[in-house]
Amino acid sequence: MITSTQNPRVKQVRALQARRRAREQEGLFVIEGVHLAREAIAAGAPAQLVLYTEDLDARGRGLVNSLAKLGAETEAVTPPVMAACSGTETPPGLIALLPLPNLFPPSPIDLALVLDGLSDPGNLGTLLRTAMAAGVQSVLLTGDTVDPFNPKVVRAAAGAHFHLPIQPAAVEDLPALLEGLDLWLAEARTGPAHTRVDWRPPCALIIGSEAHGPSDAVRRLPLRPVHIATARQTESLNAAVAAAVVLFEILRQRGLP
Amino acid sequence: MITSTQNPRVKQVRALQARRRAREQEGLFVIEGVHLAREAIAAGAPAQLVLYTEDLDARGRGLVNSLAKLGAETEAVTPPVMAACSGTETPPGLIALLPLPNLFPPSPIDLALVLDGLSDPGNLGTLLRTAMAAGVQSVLLTGDTVDPFNPKVVRAAAGAHFHLPIQPAAVEDLPALLEGLDLWLAEARTGPAHTRVDWRPPCALIIGSEAHGPSDAVRRLPLRPVHIATARQTESLNAAVAAAVVLFEILRQRGLP
Repeated sequence: MITSTQNPRVKQVRALQARRRAREQEGLFVIEGVHLAREAIAAGAPAQLVLYTEDLDARGRGLVNSLAKLGAETEAVTPPVMAACSGTETPPGLIALLPLPNLFPPSPIDLALVLDGLSDPGNLGTLLRTAMAAGVQSVLLTGDTVDPFNPKVVRAAAGAHFHLPIQPAAVEDLPALLEGLDLWLAEARTGPAHTRVDWRPPCALIIGSEAHGPSDAVRRLPLRPVHIATARQTESLNAAVAAAVVLFEILRQRGLP
Repeated sequence: MITSTQNPRVKQVRALQARRRAREQEGLFVIEGVHLAREAIAAGAPAQLVLYTEDLDARGRGLVNSLAKLGAETEAVTPPVMAACSGTETPPGLIALLPLPNLFPPSPIDLALVLDGLSDPGNLGTLLRTAMAAGVQSVLLTGDTVDPFNPKVVRAAAGAHFHLPIQPAAVEDLPALLEGLDLWLAEARTGPAHTRVDWRPPCALIIGSEAHGPSDAVRRLPLRPVHIATARQTESLNAAVAAAVVLFEILRQRGLP
């Protein structure tokens, strides 16, 4: 039983929660709670370490056992230690460290999402969750988009990290990475309405930062603009909502599932 | 120039930021920043009080002057006082107190949104912003949904409060409030896919709490379930995203704008 917040395991978890550099150097990220643990097991993502509190219910203990069988070191911790490890106000009963996933997009792909300079972690996580549900096969992060393994992103993404290939990319590499796909930029008040576009050809949807829109580098790509048809022309949408509306129109037109 | 956080105006703003009861007793709420101030002026919503810092740019000062002409008391404050008044980590150049809007839905209505037990302020704000863009004419809040004038809700709603009638309601009053409208409950894996429903008849969309779904009281209403067609059947969506996907399918089918 770990009782001290000075324990090396606890310090490791806290460093991985707090710092992108620590995550990149160790090749690990943190998940919190039974929902994400279940997603990790279902996806066959092996945990390296699991910390849990002894008040964890039977279902949660079952997950700890499953993760142990898959090779994880497991350690009980006191509630104050769990609170110190957790990034949330209501600490979960378990926390796990997992290797950063190494997923590759299928080839060829027919639906990609490019997020350029997204800075809000909750928005990015919601976007990843939405992309997963909409059948996006590759997510590319350009500009100074927030780290996709930031704990707030991981929480909001609800398990998308275990299935969806997510990779940072330089804008100049996008034409090669997205060869053969039409590049559509979601923008207010320009281009056709999203309901008037034929979305059946393979395409990538580009979403710019909510505060500043897409970067100049992205604007120099051979893009087609598309806007979201709203009930009142003046209205704007949250970036995650805008992406969701277009992605689900693409899914509808393609007749999936 | 207000230089003390003990100034009565400052105490008033802080109480209104912090407590629903203070907002309800005084009939006031707080907006932060030039974007919301511009929305308030455009909507003809009169401010009662405006606090601003002297480093506010010319555009911001123009807004302060416009609000003064519309009857607001205006006061310069020091940056530390603004920081004490603000609910954000990067305080804005201006904060205003406005009367709680008293907007009524048109009659008859053909698109309403019911939010049952939504507890996340950012989600509620995003939902209100989305509802506004999708042409929703009335938003009803049931159960223990978070206060729509909570500062985080106001920020995420991006001005929807000035145009969209938003009212708390008891579940048992919904049939009368929504008479003549089909009641559709968004749920995972039941009912038809959202793309297979004929959305042209007048309707209300009901979104339950993300953690617990809709309350038992809501479930006893004469509802039709609808699910969102996703690329993989197992995926769930954030509540704001789910509402957006259905609302924009309704808008698309109705051929607006």
